[in-house]
Amino acid sequence: MEQRLSLVTLGVADVAKARAFYEKLGWKASSGSPDDVAFFQSGGMVVALWGRAELAADSAVTDEGGWGGVALAHNVRSRDEVDAVIEQVRGAGARIGREPAETFWGGYSALFIDPDGHPWEVAHNPDWPLDAEGNVQLPG
Amino acid sequence: MEQRLSLVTLGVADVAKARAFYEKLGWKASSGSPDDVAFFQSGGMVVALWGRAELAADSAVTDEGGWGGVALAHNVRSRDEVDAVIEQVRGAGARIGREPAETFWGGYSALFIDPDGHPWEVAHNPDWPLDAEGNVQLPG
Repeated sequence: MEQRLSLVTLGVADVAKARAFYEKLGWKASSGSPDDVAFFQSGGMVVALWGRAELAADSAVTDEGGWGGVALAHNVRSRDEVDAVIEQVRGAGARIGREPAETFWGGYSALFIDPDGHPWEVAHNPDWPLDAEGNVQLPG
Repeated sequence: MEQRLSLVTLGVADVAKARAFYEKLGWKASSGSPDDVAFFQSGGMVVALWGRAELAADSAVTDEGGWGGVALAHNVRSRDEVDAVIEQVRGAGARIGREPAETFWGGYSALFIDPDGHPWEVAHNPDWPLDAEGNVQLPG
């Protein structure tokens, strides 16, 4: 199995509403998105929104609700950008789980919970510089 | 907020055990991984393994266990590669949630559940060709 994550699908209660939330943050779904799924290009991979019940059935798991041990992060180029993104997210109606602050790992971050309960950290990590396309490159 | 997912962190019961599972599949953690986290480069983003309790606290969520509405996918170049990866994963001890078969969306896929309950689809999608680096590129 090559070292690659191609797609992360977030289960949502209402795809149109969830898509509208991410579009409010400035994202743009692919024209190839069917009616009941939204696909967002992210570098060389894809983030998708799909009905949570359909996703559970397709993923061969039982859904008892709640959080399942997955967190997402959006890394940015500066502390100021963390603050700016969190203000944008607050304006879009998401709950802020952690206000911007220094972190135990030497960076600066905040965390929001999307309308379907998926946590996103917004982080500036001085040890993970982003290239022009926003890519992160770890040491080998 | 730019259209970018930088990091997906999977909460796990035991980082060393979870890391060993992914290494059995051929993945290699970054030398920059601290003792209690494993970081895997994936294209321009990162997949991480971290203790589920620590991740819940850091993500400002309550963890009642179970699945939380997130599924991952690893896309490959052919149907044969789906079959081969699933045999590798079966050999590494993961539960196969769906055996390889044609899908309703016109592709061919199978699904495994990693030892911590995170579902991974292994998929060949003829509409999403992979480039030499394994990247997917959607229509705009």
